Amino acid sequence: MLEPKEIETLLTGKEWSALRGLLCELEPADIAVLLGEIPPEQLPVAFRLLPKDLAAEVFVEFDGDDQEHLIHSFTDAELREMLDELFVDDTVDLIEEMPAVVVKRILRHTDAETRKAVNQILNYPKDSAGSMMTIEFVDLKQNMTAAEAINRIRTVGVDKETVYSCYVIDQNRHLLGVVSIRALLFAKDDEQVGEIMDTNIISAATLEDREDVALKFAKYDFLALPVVDNENRLVGIITVDDAVDVLQDENTEDFEKMAAITPAGDESYLKTSVWQHARSRILWLLLLMLSATLTGSIITRYEAAFAAVPLLVAFIPMLMDTGGNCGSQSATVVIRGLALKEIEPRNALRVLWKELRVALLVGVSLAVVNSLRVWLMYRNQTEVAFLPLCVLLSVTLIIVVMLAKSLGCLLPIAAKRCGLDPAIMASPLITTIVDTCSVLVFFSLATRMMDWLIP
Amino acid sequence: MLEPKEIETLLTGKEWSALRGLLCELEPADIAVLLGEIPPEQLPVAFRLLPKDLAAEVFVEFDGDDQEHLIHSFTDAELREMLDELFVDDTVDLIEEMPAVVVKRILRHTDAETRKAVNQILNYPKDSAGSMMTIEFVDLKQNMTAAEAINRIRTVGVDKETVYSCYVIDQNRHLLGVVSIRALLFAKDDEQVGEIMDTNIISAATLEDREDVALKFAKYDFLALPVVDNENRLVGIITVDDAVDVLQDENTEDFEKMAAITPAGDESYLKTSVWQHARSRILWLLLLMLSATLTGSIITRYEAAFAAVPLLVAFIPMLMDTGGNCGSQSATVVIRGLALKEIEPRNALRVLWKELRVALLVGVSLAVVNSLRVWLMYRNQTEVAFLPLCVLLSVTLIIVVMLAKSLGCLLPIAAKRCGLDPAIMASPLITTIVDTCSVLVFFSLATRMMDWLIP
Repeated sequence: MLEPKEIETLLTGKEWSALRGLLCELEPADIAVLLGEIPPEQLPVAFRLLPKDLAAEVFVEFDGDDQEHLIHSFTDAELREMLDELFVDDTVDLIEEMPAVVVKRILRHTDAETRKAVNQILNYPKDSAGSMMTIEFVDLKQNMTAAEAINRIRTVGVDKETVYSCYVIDQNRHLLGVVSIRALLFAKDDEQVGEIMDTNIISAATLEDREDVALKFAKYDFLALPVVDNENRLVGIITVDDAVDVLQDENTEDFEKMAAITPAGDESYLKTSVWQHARSRILWLLLLMLSATLTGSIITRYEAAFAAVPLLVAFIPMLMDTGGNCGSQSATVVIRGLALKEIEPRNALRVLWKELRVALLVGVSLAVVNSLRVWLMYRNQTEVAFLPLCVLLSVTLIIVVMLAKSLGCLLPIAAKRCGLDPAIMASPLITTIVDTCSVLVFFSLATRMMDWLIP
Repeated sequence: MLEPKEIETLLTGKEWSALRGLLCELEPADIAVLLGEIPPEQLPVAFRLLPKDLAAEVFVEFDGDDQEHLIHSFTDAELREMLDELFVDDTVDLIEEMPAVVVKRILRHTDAETRKAVNQILNYPKDSAGSMMTIEFVDLKQNMTAAEAINRIRTVGVDKETVYSCYVIDQNRHLLGVVSIRALLFAKDDEQVGEIMDTNIISAATLEDREDVALKFAKYDFLALPVVDNENRLVGIITVDDAVDVLQDENTEDFEKMAAITPAGDESYLKTSVWQHARSRILWLLLLMLSATLTGSIITRYEAAFAAVPLLVAFIPMLMDTGGNCGSQSATVVIRGLALKEIEPRNALRVLWKELRVALLVGVSLAVVNSLRVWLMYRNQTEVAFLPLCVLLSVTLIIVVMLAKSLGCLLPIAAKRCGLDPAIMASPLITTIVDTCSVLVFFSLATRMMDWLIP
């Protein structure tokens, strides 16, 4: 594999054609990674070596900083040439990333038709199907023959993002059917598109959430999905590669939210600044730190209890951690189930019933093992009576586990029903709530059992 | 949308053709969901209504129980017909799901060639590229013309999983190049495949991890990827739809592992039994509960400290939770970065340096807010001196946050370097370690400051 250092050496030695040869052997995504690692002042020179069509493919793989740097180095003619090569959805992505002054320059150098399409896509909400679609698809009429259709694909297909799914529309651009190039190839030459096409169409609405759209790809194994407006007019298509990116981004976002991180954007970990990292983490930490105060206050209310039996304090971490872990297990499986649409809010009671039974099994097992552990560690001490201590801990554990698992499954479902993202109801928040409850249950039980606890 | 109840009514009323008409309008994935919800005894009847090719597509979408139930209801002839329609990779998936007696019956009714291919794929390790590939692809020779190639696709393509990427091989089946049907269509009829094909091939090795393979799809936007053995002979291909499924499965597995759940298999939440759920959660809970004992023992060692200043106990939950949350934030971003290959083990020091700076920023902010909160709540009490208490808490917080973030980023990287899954080093484990440390730091500092703390 080519190393960034080798590129620098070839550039310094002005060995243009050797470098071009080496770069052309690579995939665009790999070229972008390599060129992203050479000194910025060398980037424009290296980039100009690439053939026009490859250059455009590499350009869309760069991160925002490199793209901006390159655009500044482009002449107007070069910029126009580059923009001509880009697909409309990539131009939209570019515009969303660039600062206003660069956007102005980009729009000045796109042709009127593309500019109109770009503006239309930019008008859709950020996370909608409309904002991720492209308008470069092959449309067919139903009275074409298969041979005519294939000819049309050969004529207009070069500039289209995919030619493998073609869309049959009437004169008002209503979507009538979908036909794959595979079906066209296997059809007889004089068969009509209208007879071959599939009329049971799964499509996306322009305003549909992009995560739901991506899940349709995962469910139905499509290579492309048509996007229609509310009068069923075909306005664009979404291809599977963009759906894969959305799935990965949404998963990353869920991982972040579930760890109490405000999603920081699409930059990779190493490219995100320390400030940005700190900013996206501090909010939840502050909130959770302050709510943990509540647990502290509850403990102070029971000063008398642990003044009488100081050993009780030793069990606080175990109860808090176990409660937190149980809650986060339930929250995670339910959040994931909701994200994959395996669980719907209407399943709330079924999920709760399942979690309660799991909690009982788990709670009893933990209580038994814990009693054994307490017996091993404390059977010879005189501060508390062993049996009451075991009863206290076992009952608390079972209650805490059942509570943690109920909250863990119900809070994400409730969030979903309220139109919030279930992922924010994840471990840290639930842990904090469960902490409070476990301390409360533990000490109020202990207080009631005090006479029995002290031998 | 058709409801399961309607299907039952149509079946009971023996309105076969009406039901067939309604079902044929749906996508296979949707039909499988619907038929999965009608009473099992009606399933074989409904399934038999589907046309042969659609039936096979629906069959692969069913879950294991329904598939097993259907196979038991098939006559030998029906089973053979169904197996003829399945792609080899789907047959492999089926065999991996079914109990031994069903597998025997399946293998008895597949033709010799398929059986050989199935056995070959079954020999690859479970999570390898080889185990997820299919052998049904179109191969071409480099001296074919574009027109001949298209003709070959039209002849042999019907049974192939994809015809959009074709693979050029020599007489020893070595992979020479890849050519898309798009390139063939845009080429002149008499151009040779050898001239059109792309010879810079990205391929997967048979033993490569399936997650790495799926990430290649995400990175390079492929529709299919060739799989080669260690002599570069083409043995199969992987299509993007299977890669999407792998990405989703691997994400689910990471979510589970990070919440201290042993991955329970591919069944959905609601289909997994209570026993299975409990089993996959109890192991880590027991382990973490027992390790929390350590934190408890440390607390008992400092009985004197909190006997002198009982208020100290009130800060344990806040310190433990904040440490846990900080650690899980770092662990999550690093685990995700490793999974997406944005972070490599060799970046360990860069990551640590970044996390330490983030920790300092976050730690100081938390300390300031916490001091304010302590001032508001405790400025009028006489048990402890306010200023020393703030110093104690602030220093502890900053140390705990820095420790949590260092462990949170280093443990997953260390796991990766040792060939373990970084996801197991997630929040619950790190929380438990950080708990112990935070209690230790807090009480040992408090003990040293005792004279100053008590007014």
